[in-house]
Amino acid sequence: MAEKIGADAALEKLTSWEKLDEDRDAICKAFKFSDFKSAWAFMSGTALKAEQMDHHPEWFNVYNRVDVVLTTHDADGVTELDVTLGSFMDNLAAQLGVQE
Amino acid sequence: MAEKIGADAALEKLTSWEKLDEDRDAICKAFKFSDFKSAWAFMSGTALKAEQMDHHPEWFNVYNRVDVVLTTHDADGVTELDVTLGSFMDNLAAQLGVQE
Amino acid sequence: MAEKIGADAALEKLTSWEKLDEDRDAICKAFKFSDFKSAWAFMSGTALKAEQMDHHPEWFNVYNRVDVVLTTHDADGVTELDVTLGSFMDNLAAQLGVQE
Amino acid sequence: MAEKIGADAALEKLTSWEKLDEDRDAICKAFKFSDFKSAWAFMSGTALKAEQMDHHPEWFNVYNRVDVVLTTHDADGVTELDVTLGSFMDNLAAQLGVQE
Repeated sequence: MAEKIGADAALEKLTSWEKLDEDRDAICKAFKFSDFKSAWAFMSGTALKAEQMDHHPEWFNVYNRVDVVLTTHDADGVTELDVTLGSFMDNLAAQLGVQE
Repeated sequence: MAEKIGADAALEKLTSWEKLDEDRDAICKAFKFSDFKSAWAFMSGTALKAEQMDHHPEWFNVYNRVDVVLTTHDADGVTELDVTLGSFMDNLAAQLGVQE
Repeated sequence: MAEKIGADAALEKLTSWEKLDEDRDAICKAFKFSDFKSAWAFMSGTALKAEQMDHHPEWFNVYNRVDVVLTTHDADGVTELDVTLGSFMDNLAAQLGVQE
Repeated sequence: MAEKIGADAALEKLTSWEKLDEDRDAICKAFKFSDFKSAWAFMSGTALKAEQMDHHPEWFNVYNRVDVVLTTHDADGVTELDVTLGSFMDNLAAQLGVQE
């Protein structure tokens, strides 16, 4: 099982992510694309990665926005699984022209 | 442009939906599937409908849960577009074994 | 690694599938849905399963049709992986109102 | 209704596509990505565009390959709809690191 490393350790690697402003150990990022098609392509590629890892994001979408929260429920906090999935999302989003 | 009918009028047709508990005119429903695959099939079919209508849901997903909010931003409230999209979602979710 | 069981053995379990009429050991099935949305929901759920298994279909789609060929390249023929994926597809297609 | 312009006229704009080697007026292109995730992100974005246009590709996928045929059945040949969809696919594939 993945061990908790905590949000601070994860953010050293995922420098564009932030600590979630809630009473739990999690990281978050708001992705903004040019339109729904790009946002959906991003979510579709990520869905495959998530199912493959058996590690799923909490994500909210409306049109071109995708707001993501990552944490590992079994570990009660952020683990390397979140770093791996977050890094995957960053790379795919960059390909799809995410607006920083 | 779609005219505002309001949440109450929409809920007469979408009887399993509820008024959003926020200071805006919107309706919501929480869908729960057996797993992420079913939830994702639901979201993927719905994404096509939404893009076709140019009317997009606000939705949150984690694993087998899909929480949806429908409203029409241009009309500042619920319109027939939301009834159409909500009805589409109900039908697709029923096919995919949504747990009521 | 999955061992070859051959198309005939697979068809005992996947009774609605057929032997591929080509010079290789494979099974095939033509799925027909009511529209592209249903076909795409089917493909989207299946894509997650395929990536999770690291076992991918050969599939052709146009509008409401999805023609699938399953075989296991590493085993040079049909294996239990194909039975598992084909069975998953049958179940999901039935949910989505596939036309037999 | 879209009028037939023919494969040759389309290929002046879609220079990386080819005439289909069959007895019908159509154009084709083979896309190759780094893996299934990228191929699927490409197909997912394209699916939205296709449904929005009500103009659907014939496409074959296995793992990282997506082989596409475009033609307009109602016009019995290639139209501007195919140029529009093909151009969309080229742009999205370029973003996703298609291998030329």
